[in-house]
Amino acid sequence: MWEDYVRKVEPYVPGEQPKVSNLIKLNTNENPYPPAPGVFEVLKHADATELKKYPDPTCSVLVDALADFYHVDREKIFVGVGSDDVLSMAFLTFYNSDVPILFPNITYSFYDVWANLYRIPYKQIPLMEDFSVRKEDYYQANGGVVLANPNAPTGANLPFKDVEDILEHNRDVVVIVDEAYADFGGESVLPLIDKYDNLLVVQTFSKSRSLAGLRIGYAFGCKKLIKYMLDVKFSFNSYTMNRPALEMGAASLRDRAYFEEKVAAVIKTREWTKGELKRLGFSFADSKTNFIFARHESVPRDYIFTRLREENILVRAFKGDIVKDYLRISIGTDEEMRVVIETLEKILKEK
Amino acid sequence: MWEDYVRKVEPYVPGEQPKVSNLIKLNTNENPYPPAPGVFEVLKHADATELKKYPDPTCSVLVDALADFYHVDREKIFVGVGSDDVLSMAFLTFYNSDVPILFPNITYSFYDVWANLYRIPYKQIPLMEDFSVRKEDYYQANGGVVLANPNAPTGANLPFKDVEDILEHNRDVVVIVDEAYADFGGESVLPLIDKYDNLLVVQTFSKSRSLAGLRIGYAFGCKKLIKYMLDVKFSFNSYTMNRPALEMGAASLRDRAYFEEKVAAVIKTREWTKGELKRLGFSFADSKTNFIFARHESVPRDYIFTRLREENILVRAFKGDIVKDYLRISIGTDEEMRVVIETLEKILKEK
Repeated sequence: MWEDYVRKVEPYVPGEQPKVSNLIKLNTNENPYPPAPGVFEVLKHADATELKKYPDPTCSVLVDALADFYHVDREKIFVGVGSDDVLSMAFLTFYNSDVPILFPNITYSFYDVWANLYRIPYKQIPLMEDFSVRKEDYYQANGGVVLANPNAPTGANLPFKDVEDILEHNRDVVVIVDEAYADFGGESVLPLIDKYDNLLVVQTFSKSRSLAGLRIGYAFGCKKLIKYMLDVKFSFNSYTMNRPALEMGAASLRDRAYFEEKVAAVIKTREWTKGELKRLGFSFADSKTNFIFARHESVPRDYIFTRLREENILVRAFKGDIVKDYLRISIGTDEEMRVVIETLEKILKEK
Repeated sequence: MWEDYVRKVEPYVPGEQPKVSNLIKLNTNENPYPPAPGVFEVLKHADATELKKYPDPTCSVLVDALADFYHVDREKIFVGVGSDDVLSMAFLTFYNSDVPILFPNITYSFYDVWANLYRIPYKQIPLMEDFSVRKEDYYQANGGVVLANPNAPTGANLPFKDVEDILEHNRDVVVIVDEAYADFGGESVLPLIDKYDNLLVVQTFSKSRSLAGLRIGYAFGCKKLIKYMLDVKFSFNSYTMNRPALEMGAASLRDRAYFEEKVAAVIKTREWTKGELKRLGFSFADSKTNFIFARHESVPRDYIFTRLREENILVRAFKGDIVKDYLRISIGTDEEMRVVIETLEKILKEK
């Protein structure tokens, strides 16, 4: 029977993407602001005739724009269909040892999924009580190290020096630093790619650049590291990034002022929200991201979640022992966060 | 050393995508006509603000449009980033047996690549002298069967009844029929998905719909088959198709008249080109695709290829014993093909 040979997987239900419009949607860490004006211009002037042709497999328009923005050689840049695609490709390319790769428990939920998919042995290292990463835990023998920094869904940031210490102790394996949220106050280790030839820094357009809908991720590493990833990528799928995404991604990078302004706005709103949440009896790690991972001192998590949903506010509640008391609240606009705080105040008073 | 654990692959050089504009580009089987007018409308009215949000992971706008166009239940449809993504996902989902899967030698060049990538054993079955598939070759024990129909790069088509015979003899494994080119005169086995629960039919927007630049492929199968593919897909990458692609793909499907008109135009040009090539001393299998795979009776392939390139006409010349005498010429506009034939005539006279 053909069903005997089907790959059996944990069925996964994607995060809720509700189609009602009066919702304050703070469940998927999207940016509340529109993308850069240049992205609108690209759309306005785009010629659909060009779509009859395959996209440029080397993605040069986007790679060039990244090279300009970050002052990095284009040979040190890899791009893919969201950082999920980039990370998955890095796992496939670099983790072919019998020694387990290391990453924290808890962290971004797809690391163990890709490890399982590609049959990579792995070991999850518990976080400290305060959700911080203890760097010494990553000094043991391993086949690779993967760190989300700032970490998801905790929002906690490991200082630059500690990431470098982990690199210093792991010169013989590839260390992936997943900086999906680093623009919101973390400190990128991008400057270290020339010092450590085994460092891969992964970032995304989905958060700080308001382009989750385009699916663009990218990575920086030494030329040799990037060449290996490109070889693997081209060996089995040449054309993945479509033409509109390449053009709009490049346009977004060309507007540094807009980028910095909107990132600063999200950070300001986040800091205000932290103060308000503290006042209402929530505690949380000091988030350097566009979300806050918080628990309330007395009112049960699921109660708050359900009441918020009834009030048309959607946040995220993960399953699992360590995180079962926490809500992950993405940072929206000032107005949205004011409504969230007022609503939380009302809900907590009811209880 | 971290390099010891890098996945070693055959480095692949993507097909030439030259940036000069006065070129007649017939090397990647692109459609010479622009996509449907509705695609232009989507671009014109697209709102970049929406790009801040993740795309719909279920791709419902596109799946619904496919369901309408093909009169197939939406639960029987899978979509992905080009048919390469769809095929690769199908290999991963269905081919987990120790018995080798079967496909022709020669055929689409990525089948063995994906098999190697996912460690799927495979056996390549030689074509007949005339490049036809002998159906009886696929009646032996196997872990799956993959047929490109019409086949690439030969253009030869296996009749509907023969494909059904192969299905009839392979009820215990998944049979993938890759119909990337079927719109140009092949006969799709889509009507058989309700009769054979192990049949997966894969198609693409890159050829007949003039949307190679958007990266959209899709597959039809019974509900159970599609559910298995979706489970595997969602287990490791939820968001792959971007928002503009979903909207423009759907718009393309809503214009059946335009689609049929442009497909008919390509077929007409192809048939004219066949006659001219025959007159000039070329032979070829009877192509039902948007390309012709032809060899000349006396003039060496590489000589013709190089001279065409010098005349700003780019066609494709594959390496390998069986195909080393052949040129693959994509069908362009009438005007382009007239220039190609005139140029060939000139080149052949020189020799």
